[in-house]
Amino acid sequence: MMLIDGRPATTVPASDRGLNYGDGLFETVRVHAGELPLFERHLARLRDGCRRLGLPHPGDDAIRADARALLADGALEGVLRIVLTHGDGGRGYAPPVDTPGRRIVSLHTLPAGLEGGMTAGVCETRLGDSPALGGLKHLGRLEQVLAARETAVAGWDEGLMLDASGWVVEGTRHNLFYWRNGHLYTPPLRSTGVAGVMRALVLESLPRAGVPGGEARLRYDDLHAIEGLLLCNAVAGLRVVERLEGRALGEGGDMRELKRELRAAGVAWLG
Amino acid sequence: MMLIDGRPATTVPASDRGLNYGDGLFETVRVHAGELPLFERHLARLRDGCRRLGLPHPGDDAIRADARALLADGALEGVLRIVLTHGDGGRGYAPPVDTPGRRIVSLHTLPAGLEGGMTAGVCETRLGDSPALGGLKHLGRLEQVLAARETAVAGWDEGLMLDASGWVVEGTRHNLFYWRNGHLYTPPLRSTGVAGVMRALVLESLPRAGVPGGEARLRYDDLHAIEGLLLCNAVAGLRVVERLEGRALGEGGDMRELKRELRAAGVAWLG
Repeated sequence: MMLIDGRPATTVPASDRGLNYGDGLFETVRVHAGELPLFERHLARLRDGCRRLGLPHPGDDAIRADARALLADGALEGVLRIVLTHGDGGRGYAPPVDTPGRRIVSLHTLPAGLEGGMTAGVCETRLGDSPALGGLKHLGRLEQVLAARETAVAGWDEGLMLDASGWVVEGTRHNLFYWRNGHLYTPPLRSTGVAGVMRALVLESLPRAGVPGGEARLRYDDLHAIEGLLLCNAVAGLRVVERLEGRALGEGGDMRELKRELRAAGVAWLG
Repeated sequence: MMLIDGRPATTVPASDRGLNYGDGLFETVRVHAGELPLFERHLARLRDGCRRLGLPHPGDDAIRADARALLADGALEGVLRIVLTHGDGGRGYAPPVDTPGRRIVSLHTLPAGLEGGMTAGVCETRLGDSPALGGLKHLGRLEQVLAARETAVAGWDEGLMLDASGWVVEGTRHNLFYWRNGHLYTPPLRSTGVAGVMRALVLESLPRAGVPGGEARLRYDDLHAIEGLLLCNAVAGLRVVERLEGRALGEGGDMRELKRELRAAGVAWLG
């Protein structure tokens, strides 16, 4: 089911700037028990992203109305995808002034395999560095596409991506946290990667859960020294990696308080 | 006028992977005197790009047939745009295996202002570095979009872009060549920028034209020391910058032999 600018539709003009230039943003929102527990966080990130890119924003109410309409059929579990593009433009990179954007909101079934421990490996495809786009969930995701294909060929559940200098950044579709010396860290994302909604929520929850940690860089060469690896995104929540490139990993640290905090914050589907 | 997979159409499914993930490539081809003088170079670049990205290629003959059909109405001057996307896919970065791609070929009028000297300035928006995507004309062009808006606001004809370390890379829609110590150089494009068809042709033509030069890096701090600046792309050809951030620039060097070589190679519209 899909709404384009609020109306049922399945196609967009081939002149859409999202298609031609990646001029747009998207969000992937978890539907749980017929609700969107983290919706306000996704809406806030979209507003911030539109501000950073000068992208027209349709207003939160329009997106909320789309979501209500799509959930009216009673879906309990699923994924709501929101795409905002810069709308239609002529040929040429400069966006037309005062053009209305386009919003594409669609409801999807929950992907399989969201439960249990995961396997992971490290992809050959490196993540680039972009001072202008770092952290944004913009429409240009070709590096993730290449790495996701590697991941599928290797048979891992997820592939980790390094930057060009060999720093660990994130997975193809998850942010990551790692246990080291009893602390739970996630790589900083200054000019690369996607600053995920679940990553932010985990970071906020650490102090309340009494788990020491925060942002800290990790070299590929130091992956052997970590005590545990977690992957997170807004659809799955937080998951444990059981095997990294064939090496067995334990839980790494006590997750009970952290999971309690996350459930209290809305991640009620967390096992 | 537009053909999608060979048939007249103006819309694509909103599930297109070019729209959702930037999973595709494009070419901007000059129409001159009803012909496509550099078409084979563009087709070769598309084949190479598809190989690098694992993108399905429709075959040169299909693209040639689209071009013939669009030019059958007798257009003499214009721009042919070719977009190849990874076609339709479900939600998720990994491309479906054996999916047919989608090709969108469209004919546009020639943009205004292709003649005469240009003004240029340096954009705040920096170009990122991507080992996986450097040089490719892929669909994720958000940095160029941001820089093109800066360029329009500043009132320049073109904006130059630096990488994060302050090296000059290219313009928002042109590659660049600069004169220094009597040599004509262009910045190398290892992991950033778009390796343009006209840039390659100029590089190839330098020895035949007896112009010393080639690839050499240029820092922003050294822009004041250049003797001349040229911008090139497949639509405009090769153009001289007359003012760079307000400073008057001369031609920088003798262009007559180089222009003769370029005209002989197909750039017959060069003034």
